[in-house]
Amino acid sequence: MERRSITCAVLGAAGYSGTELLRLLRRHPHVRIGPLFAASNAGKPLAEVVPSLRGVLDQTLEAYTPDATAGCDLVFIALPSGEAMALVPELLRRSMRVIDLGGDFRLSDPALYEEYYRRAHTATDLLPTAVFGLPEWNASAIRKASLLANPGCYPTSAILPLLPVLKAGVVSPTGIVINSLSGVSGAGRSASVDMSFAEINESVRPYKAGVHQHTPEIEQAFAMFAGIPATVTFVPHLLPITRGILTTLAAPLARPVTDDELRTIFSTAYSSAPFVRVIEGIPEIRNVNHTNFIDIGWKRYERNHQLLLFSAIDNLVKGAAGQAVQNMNLMFGFDESEGLE
Amino acid sequence: MERRSITCAVLGAAGYSGTELLRLLRRHPHVRIGPLFAASNAGKPLAEVVPSLRGVLDQTLEAYTPDATAGCDLVFIALPSGEAMALVPELLRRSMRVIDLGGDFRLSDPALYEEYYRRAHTATDLLPTAVFGLPEWNASAIRKASLLANPGCYPTSAILPLLPVLKAGVVSPTGIVINSLSGVSGAGRSASVDMSFAEINESVRPYKAGVHQHTPEIEQAFAMFAGIPATVTFVPHLLPITRGILTTLAAPLARPVTDDELRTIFSTAYSSAPFVRVIEGIPEIRNVNHTNFIDIGWKRYERNHQLLLFSAIDNLVKGAAGQAVQNMNLMFGFDESEGLE
Amino acid sequence: MERRSITCAVLGAAGYSGTELLRLLRRHPHVRIGPLFAASNAGKPLAEVVPSLRGVLDQTLEAYTPDATAGCDLVFIALPSGEAMALVPELLRRSMRVIDLGGDFRLSDPALYEEYYRRAHTATDLLPTAVFGLPEWNASAIRKASLLANPGCYPTSAILPLLPVLKAGVVSPTGIVINSLSGVSGAGRSASVDMSFAEINESVRPYKAGVHQHTPEIEQAFAMFAGIPATVTFVPHLLPITRGILTTLAAPLARPVTDDELRTIFSTAYSSAPFVRVIEGIPEIRNVNHTNFIDIGWKRYERNHQLLLFSAIDNLVKGAAGQAVQNMNLMFGFDESEGLE
Amino acid sequence: MERRSITCAVLGAAGYSGTELLRLLRRHPHVRIGPLFAASNAGKPLAEVVPSLRGVLDQTLEAYTPDATAGCDLVFIALPSGEAMALVPELLRRSMRVIDLGGDFRLSDPALYEEYYRRAHTATDLLPTAVFGLPEWNASAIRKASLLANPGCYPTSAILPLLPVLKAGVVSPTGIVINSLSGVSGAGRSASVDMSFAEINESVRPYKAGVHQHTPEIEQAFAMFAGIPATVTFVPHLLPITRGILTTLAAPLARPVTDDELRTIFSTAYSSAPFVRVIEGIPEIRNVNHTNFIDIGWKRYERNHQLLLFSAIDNLVKGAAGQAVQNMNLMFGFDESEGLE
Repeated sequence: MERRSITCAVLGAAGYSGTELLRLLRRHPHVRIGPLFAASNAGKPLAEVVPSLRGVLDQTLEAYTPDATAGCDLVFIALPSGEAMALVPELLRRSMRVIDLGGDFRLSDPALYEEYYRRAHTATDLLPTAVFGLPEWNASAIRKASLLANPGCYPTSAILPLLPVLKAGVVSPTGIVINSLSGVSGAGRSASVDMSFAEINESVRPYKAGVHQHTPEIEQAFAMFAGIPATVTFVPHLLPITRGILTTLAAPLARPVTDDELRTIFSTAYSSAPFVRVIEGIPEIRNVNHTNFIDIGWKRYERNHQLLLFSAIDNLVKGAAGQAVQNMNLMFGFDESEGLE
Repeated sequence: MERRSITCAVLGAAGYSGTELLRLLRRHPHVRIGPLFAASNAGKPLAEVVPSLRGVLDQTLEAYTPDATAGCDLVFIALPSGEAMALVPELLRRSMRVIDLGGDFRLSDPALYEEYYRRAHTATDLLPTAVFGLPEWNASAIRKASLLANPGCYPTSAILPLLPVLKAGVVSPTGIVINSLSGVSGAGRSASVDMSFAEINESVRPYKAGVHQHTPEIEQAFAMFAGIPATVTFVPHLLPITRGILTTLAAPLARPVTDDELRTIFSTAYSSAPFVRVIEGIPEIRNVNHTNFIDIGWKRYERNHQLLLFSAIDNLVKGAAGQAVQNMNLMFGFDESEGLE
Repeated sequence: MERRSITCAVLGAAGYSGTELLRLLRRHPHVRIGPLFAASNAGKPLAEVVPSLRGVLDQTLEAYTPDATAGCDLVFIALPSGEAMALVPELLRRSMRVIDLGGDFRLSDPALYEEYYRRAHTATDLLPTAVFGLPEWNASAIRKASLLANPGCYPTSAILPLLPVLKAGVVSPTGIVINSLSGVSGAGRSASVDMSFAEINESVRPYKAGVHQHTPEIEQAFAMFAGIPATVTFVPHLLPITRGILTTLAAPLARPVTDDELRTIFSTAYSSAPFVRVIEGIPEIRNVNHTNFIDIGWKRYERNHQLLLFSAIDNLVKGAAGQAVQNMNLMFGFDESEGLE
Repeated sequence: MERRSITCAVLGAAGYSGTELLRLLRRHPHVRIGPLFAASNAGKPLAEVVPSLRGVLDQTLEAYTPDATAGCDLVFIALPSGEAMALVPELLRRSMRVIDLGGDFRLSDPALYEEYYRRAHTATDLLPTAVFGLPEWNASAIRKASLLANPGCYPTSAILPLLPVLKAGVVSPTGIVINSLSGVSGAGRSASVDMSFAEINESVRPYKAGVHQHTPEIEQAFAMFAGIPATVTFVPHLLPITRGILTTLAAPLARPVTDDELRTIFSTAYSSAPFVRVIEGIPEIRNVNHTNFIDIGWKRYERNHQLLLFSAIDNLVKGAAGQAVQNMNLMFGFDESEGLE
């Protein structure tokens, strides 16, 4: 295992995912933080925009140019979906490796991208080479990736519990219902009445039911890693909390199963996964927040022929920046957990 | 329509449902508030235990005795489930009418009560006469009830959206998945680490998945009002908010349906229901809190052969005290909305 | 006391204060709700912008023109400060009575307005006739007012506890420290990163310390009602709650005082004030929310020669819409509490 | 500087401060975590009581006996105040070094302890040797301490901003007003109605105004480190957030002062303090949470002859566990920041 240091640039450094990424990278023993790019905040000290980093990271935010990444080994893109596809081609031409935390390179089918993201894909030639960065299921491809698509927060919370039981034939690939409850930081840092405190507080808001862009990402993972074309009903909800996702899944049982068998299925699937905790009991957000863990629990409900699955992650860590660092560790031959515990 | 006044006693006046009930009753033009009973707080001024009622209701909490209800027309029981069944027989012997906000008289099958409430039922002879107080579906029985079982908060939020489509044959009675998200006031006012602020805040907690006592109450309603034996998967979650329930339901489509037909089904079912708002769009708790409304919305999701339904209520109003007053209005011949708008 | 009905128009009907006002007005037995005006939302049904009012108030928001107020007796202006002064002159010319919930007519000295609101006052000729609408101290002027300046939320919470002890010579008029903690609805409904959920939640934010525009309003009240030129240090803080203000005041003791004397001072000052509750103990927001009450408590702290005062109000009710209705009641000869309990 | 490792025991390992301490200690390069003690939870796996530590710290909680600390270099006591004084004498006899996170050894005058903690002190002979663990002002004594009293959370937030300006004669030692706003984790993990979610949420609660036990701790620090007998008015408030303290202080100006002089005073006082950030602007809790930083800001308010000071800390880190680790670092010759950044 190589032990050299790498230099990383970050686009979107002042957003919620970008900031979380900086927090992780600066503790990483093999990472040197390179240029930090921002759009409207370019030219300002990072600590002015993100006061929590005062005295921690004293850099100035820059306007992005490809030349400014010279000398970097890796570029993290923590921008809203739709922006990365304009930047990645040039970065790859410069032999930079790229981890995109947005959605532009997650779906291999550009038609699905167009349908769910409601814009045309402008870098379709790169889609075949993009690697879906789910370390627990795709490690060997990740190690060799030049362009890595970091999974969405919701898909991470849904795929990891479902995949082992789907692959084991325990649940049926149709009729699956996924209810996800997310903190608001998942929506990014932006000015809108809808995301203002008084509109979110003391309420909960289902949104984009059935049309959320993470739906095909979840389904694609089942085809990709289990060879099973599954259809899911995915209903995301916005909670009055800052961070964390709790996902409750109900999947039709395809055959009888015992808790012991489920225990075996999950522990086999994740025995060497450092950040998956299969638990007896029900996951809660507060147990995983500020960590890269995903907690997974289950409950057989044979009265209605279903298996209930539950998962909890921190949307900014395992659902974004933490998983990105985990992927970086694999890509550069570091220990998978380095900088993440 | 009679227009006399009635006198009401309240058992459990200092709990969250009891307090909400007092707030509604004191504005009701045909109600005189009679004795207010409490257990550990008996002897204290109500305003000492519930400071929000200072200068609003200057009564003293009393220890309950059957004699103390003399002169009352109606007794509301807002106690934890399990307590009412010991008190109701004597109250009925005294020709008192009773509205029980707890769960003791909701299930007509005592075996189900024992299975889900984990205690024996001690007043099974009264179960046949108890009336399930869902005004939108059971008004004529409610009008004549002596013993009324006020529905649970979760069942109210689940039955009202599901019943019309189930009855119309639009959805299948098996494979239904109900995810409910509730504020903590539903758990009552009590001292426990689990319900302390620091354990609830910034998290969300699924609990009693598949074994919650409201499961058979929901299923019984489908048999009772649609003649359909349905099985549901019911997963309640505790949210970091004080009040309100948002319920997201996924039901397998039994046949093709259009939005127009759904619009007709719902508007027909609830055309004369003053507190049901069938909306285009998705309900949110903040739109119904502190009101007796239930907002109902839907989304067809034919890709996965499901109908998604959404509802929002205030668990302390439409889910408890408000619905109790609505039932009282029917029982005593007042206008159904009196004191509730 | 006259008992006729009046017709009221509302400018800014879709804002937080405007919505709260509509909730109160529609329950008021002597009020007919007239035209509702909005700016960007003109032309939309009210219930589309404020979904909680679906089925409650089925009006359409209009663009404001002076002519549209024809037939109204009273116009409420619930707009951001700075907008009313452009509209009021024309309304008064039309013999309309006006209650302005903003800050334009609260300060009688236009130089103070310019200093604290950072804009010139364009209707200075009206300032001498504007009446400061603090019902507990200014009722006789309010009854005759054509142009009423509804007090600010913070000043209401600070003036009512301080004025009696200042007037009684118990505390000194210099060195007073006022810390106010407010829910975010006080800042109105608007799109900004600063007010987004993730920036407010799990934090608390002091702002405009010493320069907040409510400072001279508080000081002016002491001069106006006690004849005492006082100077206060006023530090507002933004809390992660939607509504409510808790104010903690520390005033230097000018002379020895007993709890009995304080009890007498407060009960004398507010014996006939229906919405002031002087309590033994410490006020909390949850006890007054959704009501027009102000709770006032105190604690002598002779070790440091200070009197501590505490108050709690709902910023949208006693701090805005409720107090406006209370003022309307006085202006039109209704019972002071009508529609408010 | 020595570089050996030490072994630490923790009493009260399952409380909020204890858990935070474990999080910090396990990352510390020179610490081996020894036995973890709990009372009611003894015998249970730590991860069962604190699920967030599953897979992170797989130890079992033990019942405390002095013998069980054999081999330890340091014992952290994270118990409610009043418990440490019964345990410390025996620990010191065994030559153990002790850091007490509770209040038993903070006040050197046992009469003040008795007055404010409302119990007699049972280990008064140890008070003269106990060292007050405020690293920024007492480092040399801390290095040699056997028994270290870790400061209270509120005092940390009040003393650090006030001490430099008091010592410089900028503010007067009488008439100081301190308003502190704290998250609920400061009250510890316990079952009570008062601390339940529904009683804390959407409100704010002043408590123990003028009689809080941290009052004499603050005053003692001024005498101890500035030689100035000061009297303060201290009003703590409970906020609906989990962690963090925001303190707003108003101190009478003793003489004219400029911002430049204040800048010099603070930067001189804290130039070598790694966790004090003197900022232009106003501190907010969200900028320091989950860190050991204290942010300090100020605002001159000469209109009312006062200096306003503001500070923000994480009550569980700089206000408890983090400061304890900082003290441990000094006591054992490690780098002051080790394990804390």
